Amino acid sequence: MTGRKPRKPAWVVDRERARREAARETVWLFGLHAVRDALANPARRRLRLIVTKNAADRLAAEIAASGMTPEIADARRFPAPLDPQSVHQGAALEVHPLDWGGLEACCAPAPKAAGAAPVALCLDRVTDPHNVGAILRSAEVFGARAVIAPARHSAPETGALAKTASGALERQPYLRVQNLARAMAALSEMGYALVGLDGAADETLEAAAARLAARPVALVLGAEGPGLRQLTRESCDTLVRIPAAGGFGSLNVSNAAAVALYAVTRGR
Amino acid sequence: MTGRKPRKPAWVVDRERARREAARETVWLFGLHAVRDALANPARRRLRLIVTKNAADRLAAEIAASGMTPEIADARRFPAPLDPQSVHQGAALEVHPLDWGGLEACCAPAPKAAGAAPVALCLDRVTDPHNVGAILRSAEVFGARAVIAPARHSAPETGALAKTASGALERQPYLRVQNLARAMAALSEMGYALVGLDGAADETLEAAAARLAARPVALVLGAEGPGLRQLTRESCDTLVRIPAAGGFGSLNVSNAAAVALYAVTRGR
Repeated sequence: MTGRKPRKPAWVVDRERARREAARETVWLFGLHAVRDALANPARRRLRLIVTKNAADRLAAEIAASGMTPEIADARRFPAPLDPQSVHQGAALEVHPLDWGGLEACCAPAPKAAGAAPVALCLDRVTDPHNVGAILRSAEVFGARAVIAPARHSAPETGALAKTASGALERQPYLRVQNLARAMAALSEMGYALVGLDGAADETLEAAAARLAARPVALVLGAEGPGLRQLTRESCDTLVRIPAAGGFGSLNVSNAAAVALYAVTRGR
Repeated sequence: MTGRKPRKPAWVVDRERARREAARETVWLFGLHAVRDALANPARRRLRLIVTKNAADRLAAEIAASGMTPEIADARRFPAPLDPQSVHQGAALEVHPLDWGGLEACCAPAPKAAGAAPVALCLDRVTDPHNVGAILRSAEVFGARAVIAPARHSAPETGALAKTASGALERQPYLRVQNLARAMAALSEMGYALVGLDGAADETLEAAAARLAARPVALVLGAEGPGLRQLTRESCDTLVRIPAAGGFGSLNVSNAAAVALYAVTRGR
């Protein structure tokens, strides 16, 4: 017998390390709009605020309400660790990613038929932050419960994403899951119909939207070019296409998401 | 009496100068996709093609078919006058902007009720090339006759726009007009209903789409933030909104355009 504590299994150690890392993970938001929205969001855990004198004046009310003490900086020697191309407008805020509380908390349909059946969005390896930012805005406008993406191979919650999301990042659940196929299976168990967008599908978006108007629906979109991966495609209940007028062309992924969200939420 | 020729009025001189300048105007397209599409487009007037050895191999068929003699360049000293951030993939092509032949040629409805009533899109000071590129793709997919924008204060036909348009720039008429209000008046005379998107409008997009299903429709969108300018708004026959689920949020302009195009073309 030794005096050591029983050793934890490797997977427990891994999980605990991942949690510690997630808690340590921080993001620099930038730009007046994104910083203002994050200051006004009570759910945001905020660390450092760096602003120019001018930006401090413009954000005076939100800074006062947040209780933060800003570090005033010179615009020409702005000390926040941002990409040189970032249009920060003299405002940068270091924050922790938002904790939306998981798939069940965000997406579980109401127990009875109280209100419209919910809609969610799954993104299969959509990596461009501008597209994901625009998708978060559309998800908010059309009342989607959550935008769900794999933790790896998708756009992280960065300043560029926050800026394109134009405030929606503070209000629209964006869940990054370990395994997208498993999240889709969980949605399926909650009663969601999994509807994948695929240009070669037989059914049209409109027909599926009408057929599924009373069901919870999770729309599944892949990256432009490769589209849905095989496993993702096989996990869908239905594949649908957005009909094109001519033989050419395809929609930008955020445009396809907006059209699909409009089509499935219209009739609810 | 003098021996000089009669002097041209100033406006004639101005117009002739504008035409000469337009004929001289050139654009550098870049990226394999954009260059391939422009090489394959017989309507493109092409000037110079600069490619790396690798890109020349990948574009071999299109280069041969175009009859152009490419200038082979080193990737590290790529001589095309591009923005340093441009992801050119070793291919750049200098071209003249496409000539789509004007508003009447693109947008005039068929004399009788042959086929569906046409749809067009007017953009009021949408300056971001990524948004306009995405809008051109959506316009092509939904079969819009043209995307119309003022010559000034809108995204010019640049390499960045061409890249985001992902080929649609070669196929989708993009008309830059001297005066947007005048172009809208011309569309109105052709029988178009001018439908402006405005978050504060009473009528919904869906109701207007149903009401106007048999009419030619020109959708009019403003820039994010300022929205439609007053003169543009007053020139519209109807203002419509895309209903939002909550009190917050707004769509990215290209997402709004895609949803509006989908809504008005569905029933045609």
